Amino acid sequence: MKITTNQAEKIAGFKFAAGASGIRKSGRLDLALIYSEVPARCAGVFTTNKIKAAPLQLTEPRVAEGLCQAVLVNSGNANACTGAPGLRDAKRCSELAAAALQIPENYLAVSSTGVIGAPLPMDSFEKHIPLLAQNLTSDAADAVSQAIMTTDSFAKLASCRGEVAKAPYRLLGVAKGAGMIHPNMATMLGFVLTDAQVEPALLQEALRRAVDNSFNIITVDGDTSTNDMVLLLANGAAGNREICSGTAEGERFVEELTGVLLELAKMIVRDGEGATKLARIRILGAASDEDAKKAAVSVATSSLVKTAFFGEDANWGRIIAAVGYSGAEVDSEKVEIRFDDVPVVCQGISTGQELEEKATEVLKQAEFTVTVDLALGDASADYYTSDLTYEYVKINADYRT
Amino acid sequence: MKITTNQAEKIAGFKFAAGASGIRKSGRLDLALIYSEVPARCAGVFTTNKIKAAPLQLTEPRVAEGLCQAVLVNSGNANACTGAPGLRDAKRCSELAAAALQIPENYLAVSSTGVIGAPLPMDSFEKHIPLLAQNLTSDAADAVSQAIMTTDSFAKLASCRGEVAKAPYRLLGVAKGAGMIHPNMATMLGFVLTDAQVEPALLQEALRRAVDNSFNIITVDGDTSTNDMVLLLANGAAGNREICSGTAEGERFVEELTGVLLELAKMIVRDGEGATKLARIRILGAASDEDAKKAAVSVATSSLVKTAFFGEDANWGRIIAAVGYSGAEVDSEKVEIRFDDVPVVCQGISTGQELEEKATEVLKQAEFTVTVDLALGDASADYYTSDLTYEYVKINADYRT
Repeated sequence: MKITTNQAEKIAGFKFAAGASGIRKSGRLDLALIYSEVPARCAGVFTTNKIKAAPLQLTEPRVAEGLCQAVLVNSGNANACTGAPGLRDAKRCSELAAAALQIPENYLAVSSTGVIGAPLPMDSFEKHIPLLAQNLTSDAADAVSQAIMTTDSFAKLASCRGEVAKAPYRLLGVAKGAGMIHPNMATMLGFVLTDAQVEPALLQEALRRAVDNSFNIITVDGDTSTNDMVLLLANGAAGNREICSGTAEGERFVEELTGVLLELAKMIVRDGEGATKLARIRILGAASDEDAKKAAVSVATSSLVKTAFFGEDANWGRIIAAVGYSGAEVDSEKVEIRFDDVPVVCQGISTGQELEEKATEVLKQAEFTVTVDLALGDASADYYTSDLTYEYVKINADYRT
Repeated sequence: MKITTNQAEKIAGFKFAAGASGIRKSGRLDLALIYSEVPARCAGVFTTNKIKAAPLQLTEPRVAEGLCQAVLVNSGNANACTGAPGLRDAKRCSELAAAALQIPENYLAVSSTGVIGAPLPMDSFEKHIPLLAQNLTSDAADAVSQAIMTTDSFAKLASCRGEVAKAPYRLLGVAKGAGMIHPNMATMLGFVLTDAQVEPALLQEALRRAVDNSFNIITVDGDTSTNDMVLLLANGAAGNREICSGTAEGERFVEELTGVLLELAKMIVRDGEGATKLARIRILGAASDEDAKKAAVSVATSSLVKTAFFGEDANWGRIIAAVGYSGAEVDSEKVEIRFDDVPVVCQGISTGQELEEKATEVLKQAEFTVTVDLALGDASADYYTSDLTYEYVKINADYRT
């Protein structure tokens, strides 16, 4: 399985358009449309935040019906905490797009990301949404990936090819997110398209499993948002034999999907607001899966650990402290910690100055792995995190000004 | 009840000494001794971190016995994750102090704070601990408050007077902590002394209740440490009638103790690493006490909320999002949010630009209250937090260098 990044390939039966509606300053792309020539089977995963933005209130039940033909997304405005008028606006967006595309309105998914609490610029949208429908082309996936950016510093696109009984198919995903990133679908949007023919039951299962092993194991700042969604659309244009759950082909499809989403997820962490490092936190030897996860999350979200990464300081004391307060079972005399392959803690105590200096060299890299072996059992977990920098504070103190 | 801060009053039957052992650079005070002329009844609260530093392993069981006559504290070195040698060092510190003071060793509490994983400088301690015992005086509580500082920018001392049947008594507390501050006793030390005669059962109950409403409702960065402890010593030198649990006097004692600890706790948040703001997060109208607490913690620990405070941005969207992912029951159409007395959200939506500008003025103050009324029930909770600043990142990226 080979994942290609930031290369906008065509994908059979899908078209794209993006435009600048004026929400974002200086004519940036801020409105995008993804369209499938035929109604696609779809699956979705949505924020766990109890405050759900208007577009999610509208889209979630539609996606649950299983068919989707177009996705309308805007950046710059989340249409969240906007009450009944916000829901009317989301509905109007979907009406405008459905009318322009001449498709049933309930085949339309809408999605928004940006500032909370402000009304959508409907006057502008009345004009710009129909324009998108006129400008659909098969080679504009990259424009969509740009239009959904908010504080992202680069667009995020990943793809992969698969095959069923010699019939080739493709997977293409775009995502956005750079802050408010945390498991359970923190402010991030992801749209994944495939021209494969996929059994509806597998589609939802595949998306859930892939998200759990990609977007749900990354953190930038621990905040989850009101607007997150990941949609998977499968339009069958590749003409392959249907891929079904419980088969080798089905498992391969899940792996490919996970591969695409994990690549997008890692791009999100690399682009974490102000981030200069991508660290994989790997817990080994935990007493249970739950413990492994708890310990990984605790280390990955510790502000002290994240600032130490920024300072390129192999401060394992903060890591062991974060494991200690995670709630996971720990025996302080068994813990081992490595930075890449350099051991800094063995049986709970320091391996000495020389190895710590070597570990500091590891931290000078842009990407590295911190392994904590609890030596209590067989469970393990991975988690990806960024460092916490001056720039993070600057971006988030200034965001609306 | 009047709480006095940063004024080192004498307290009957207690003596203090502080010295510079050389752990900290430039001759800063880093070693301190608190001594009671008679064995004092004592109570303690210790870190919930599963990785417990050596001094805690030694002190916790001793405090559980109920009597304590002296506390030896050092800053600059936590003696944590130091294995069997670390425990031997902690034991040796206690032997040295007990011998110098000529008291039973099990009446000695030891406490350390600072860098994790390095051995204590025992050569220096062999010389300096006996010196402390020679220099005890009744008016050096402020020197103790200075000697326990690590990244603290100011010393923290608070006191209060009480009375039982016309017999006056005093409460005097010192604390340290500026980072790794979070509920459940994050890297902070607190030592509270009273000359009152207090029933042993009340002593532990009072400390638990007071800590729950002071040190356990503050957060700076969400990290809890391996070394936290709060000790309460009551030596009875005031000669009052014993204060007992379940009496009006007992309740008053708990209130006074809570007042002293809350004042120390707020000083810790004000001194939060890099902090420029002290914000009280007040949740009202929650469906349950647990929900109120969850929502308060979630808002108080959100990096996005804390950076918005730093940016003096009345970004209520981040607050409502943090409530939404807290796990507390929320009805987005009922939520009200105020900055001091300025309403910015009513029934889940913005109250408009003008009030938001007024709220921005509130955020320009050094201290303010953010109230979130969930309008679902009667439960409430308070939480104190700081802003997240460039300086926080700087301090923690550079701490060991």
